This record gives sequence, structure tokens and C-alpha cells, in this order.
Amino acid sequence: MTANQLFENICRKKSFLSVGLDSDITKIPTHLLSTENPIFEFNKSIIDATADYCVAYKPNIAFYESLGVKGWQALHDTVRYIRQHYPDQFLIADAKRGDIGNTSAMYARTFFGELDFDAVTVAPYMGEDSVTPFLKYSNKWVILLALTSNKGATDFQLSEDNSGERLFEKVLSRSQQWASPDQMMYVVGATQDEYFDDVRKYVPHYFLLVPGIGAQGGDLDKVCQHALNEQCGLLVNSSRQILYAGHDKQFAQSARLEAQKVQHAMQTILVERGWIAS
Amino acid sequence: MTANQLFENICRKKSFLSVGLDSDITKIPTHLLSTENPIFEFNKSIIDATADYCVAYKPNIAFYESLGVKGWQALHDTVRYIRQHYPDQFLIADAKRGDIGNTSAMYARTFFGELDFDAVTVAPYMGEDSVTPFLKYSNKWVILLALTSNKGATDFQLSEDNSGERLFEKVLSRSQQWASPDQMMYVVGATQDEYFDDVRKYVPHYFLLVPGIGAQGGDLDKVCQHALNEQCGLLVNSSRQILYAGHDKQFAQSARLEAQKVQHAMQTILVERGWIAS
Repeated sequence: MTANQLFENICRKKSFLSVGLDSDITKIPTHLLSTENPIFEFNKSIIDATADYCVAYKPNIAFYESLGVKGWQALHDTVRYIRQHYPDQFLIADAKRGDIGNTSAMYARTFFGELDFDAVTVAPYMGEDSVTPFLKYSNKWVILLALTSNKGATDFQLSEDNSGERLFEKVLSRSQQWASPDQMMYVVGATQDEYFDDVRKYVPHYFLLVPGIGAQGGDLDKVCQHALNEQCGLLVNSSRQILYAGHDKQFAQSARLEAQKVQHAMQTILVERGWIAS
Repeated sequence: MTANQLFENICRKKSFLSVGLDSDITKIPTHLLSTENPIFEFNKSIIDATADYCVAYKPNIAFYESLGVKGWQALHDTVRYIRQHYPDQFLIADAKRGDIGNTSAMYARTFFGELDFDAVTVAPYMGEDSVTPFLKYSNKWVILLALTSNKGATDFQLSEDNSGERLFEKVLSRSQQWASPDQMMYVVGATQDEYFDDVRKYVPHYFLLVPGIGAQGGDLDKVCQHALNEQCGLLVNSSRQILYAGHDKQFAQSARLEAQKVQHAMQTILVERGWIAS
């Protein structure tokens, strides 16, 4: 999928919502635990309930890995299910990988070969040759960590070099030489709203993946005020607030209502910007 | 395992070698491909052949993930095999993980709960709360990336802040406040020998995991000259040079000879330092 196609999907669906599939075996409704593949059953219900209101799904790989072989099976099944039933969804592996070249090539094979994701999140610490193996797959994306939503983001990401450039800015400035806005996006946490103007100075034309609204406390309107670009340029993710909106047999309906609420807010913003009719 | 116990193992085995299990389905001897679980069969042979000469095994998780569910099964089987047959080996999951707190907690559950590793490699970009969930497991270790062995290490890790401190030094200085030398080690690539003196100024008492000798070009003697501390303080890893020393049915014997060669060099160093008798 190109950046243009993603923007078209956003206009058609009137949404730039990504639903994070942080599917936690200790939090899903208990009646699912007696099924053969509880995480996949949960995901299927969540996906069917929310697909009208989002343009992307983002499985958080840690939650699948933590269940070992069964977790990887659930991840496989989830990716296949989305591909079969909702082929227009942008599929993000939230994996935060990154290693020396031959190892990053293996991770790329995992998420783009073995599994058919559109994008994978990558940590920039190890530099260019840890990122470029992911870019060898055409029509696939790297989503590079820039400024994350957590408290620890301040530990290193904000440290200034001797020319006054902060680490996240150095990451933005260097890495855009590695890939165009059709293959690279950046993670910028919704909780970092004071920095969005600075981010946009470096990467005006790139999409940003913005986690951190909902449970983590980020605010959609504030994010949009500073971070929208000429083609929306945002995928805003919500995980826990949607997945765990309900805990009984109506959990999927509760998730649907929560996703719809976010989509409505996004529609208002898209209308205000003149990208879609009211 | 504590740092003291690790040092005792090093003296007893006369080795501080870690064997990296970067087991690649496209590189293992072809006669194994007809077995039910080729990667596990390969690992078993390599482990049996090299266990006399090393104190640690380091499966590189990317190589298992890239095979999907089958790969995770091979990883499980490998960990169990080592635990059963070689319980004194230190087991490192080379995973380079790191995410927001609740997600890092899931990764910790993966490697310390679901799988019984002693240690996991973690990327520092997201700061303290992305690392501390791994430290909640007693007797388990975080091995934090400091200065990696690849070319891209220079992109960000060497950038100086406005007080002249480089990023890898900031990582060393901050992170040692999070854990003692019994729970934290650092990755410093063997190819970075000019920086080992600087590393040791920051973390004189911590173990370092040193990848990059062999295929990546690092030199054991140079590393030891600058990086040994009062209790050895090094695990030096070799992967490809040992695993793929031979390609025919004698591959395990070739791996054994290669591991023995490295162990002999290490024994000489340990004798020179007076930690073991000649």
C-alpha cells in the first residue's frame, strides 16, 4: 500500500484509527477461555466489530509471543483472517525489532514473508544497517521509533547533542535519507503533543503512527492540531480502551461503540480540513 | 545465576565463550532437512559438540521467528534440551526487545516465564520503564545494548550531548542505577575495541556480552586487553564461525574443533591473569 492509497482509505472510511490488538489472555472475557484458540476468537470478534471504523490493525507481538507456540498460531490466524475478510486494512506488526543486518533480514522475513504484514515497528538504536533490510521488500513499510509515549522517552530520546539537536530529531533527520514517505513512518506518542510541531519540521510529508490515546492519556484533538499534514499523515492507535471496553458476552459490541466514538471524532476533523464532505 | 556463579563456571570450564545459535534453515547441512524438526536437530548436535567449551548459549530469536510456529517449537525444544542436559549453561535470548511497560512485561513473561532463559538482550531507546519490567524476575538478567558491533552503531550511539557524553555512555551511566552487576550486563561489540577503555570507566564491575568475533571481524586478544575486569567480566560470543565451520555430515565435529580453538585461546588468557592454574 502506498501513502496515497492509505490516504484514500482514510477518506473513504472517514477514519484514521488503528486498532491495537494487545490481546491479553488475562483480560479477555472468561467465556472465551474454553475455546480452542481463545486469543484468535477474541480477535475475530473485535475485528468484525470494529473493521467499519478503522483503517489499520496493529497486533502487539509481545502479547502473542508470551503464549509461545500457541500465541504464534493465534497471530498467524489473525493476520490471515484480516487478509481474507478485510483486505483494505493496513496491517502493522508492533514488534520494535532491530539488529545487525543479517538478523534484521530475518525479522523482515518473519513479518513480511512468513506473515503478511504491511509494516513493522523498528527501534533505531542500532542505526542504518539495522533498518535497511526491512526496506528491501517493495510495498512494505518501516515504522521507526522517534518519540515514544512512555515516561522513559525522556531518558535518551530528548537528550541534545552538541549542536542542540535532540536524539529523536537526529533519528528523523538521518532516517528519512533511507526511505521515502511511501516506505517509512514514525512513531510519535500522543502524550508528546508539545513536540509535534518540532517533529513536523523534520518530516512534514511522512505518516506518523501515534499510540497513546485512551489508556495512556493522549488527546486526539491536541494531536491533530499539531500533527496533521497535507494528506492527513496520521494513524492514531487505540488499544486497551477499545479491546476492553466490555468484559461480558457483549464485549465486541462495547468495542464497536468505543471505536465508533473515536471514528466520529476523526470524521469531524476530516470534514473540518475539507478532505471529506460532511 | 549470580555474577559470582558465572565467574566460577568460567574458571571451571576455562572458557568465557558464548555460542550463538543463529541457526539458519538455509545454511544447515542439507541431510538434516528431511528430519521432522531440522533446526532442533542441528542445535542438538551443535550443543552436544560444543558444551565442553562454552559457558553460555545465545539463540538469536530472529532466526526462530522467521520460521513461524515451527521456529518457536524449535526454540522451545532447544531451551528445554539445554536445561535438561547442560544445566550449568547461561542461556541468553538475543531478542533486542524493549517497549512501554505493560508490553515489556509481556516480553519478560515470554523469555523468563514461557521460556526459561537466564537473560534477554534489550534495546535502551525507550528508557527506564521499558527495561525495568525485565528486572522484576529474580535471578534473571537484562543485557542492555550499549555499543553494538555493526556499522550503524556510529549513527546514533556515538553522538555526543552538549556535555560531551556520548549516547552509549549515557546509556551505561543511567542504566546502572536500575540494576546491579548481578542483574545487568551490556552488549559491546568486539569490533569496537577502541572504546572498551571508555566503557570500563563507566561500568568497571559489570559483565559485558561481546559479539562480533569471527565472521564480524573482532579480535579476542584486543578485546581482552581492554575489557577484562576483576572477575573476567566478559562473555565473548561466536556464532557463524562455529555453527557453519563444516557443511557435511561431520559438521558437529567441525563446530567442536572451532569452539575448542576459541576456548584454548581463552584458557591462555585466564591463566595469564592468574584465575586458573596452567
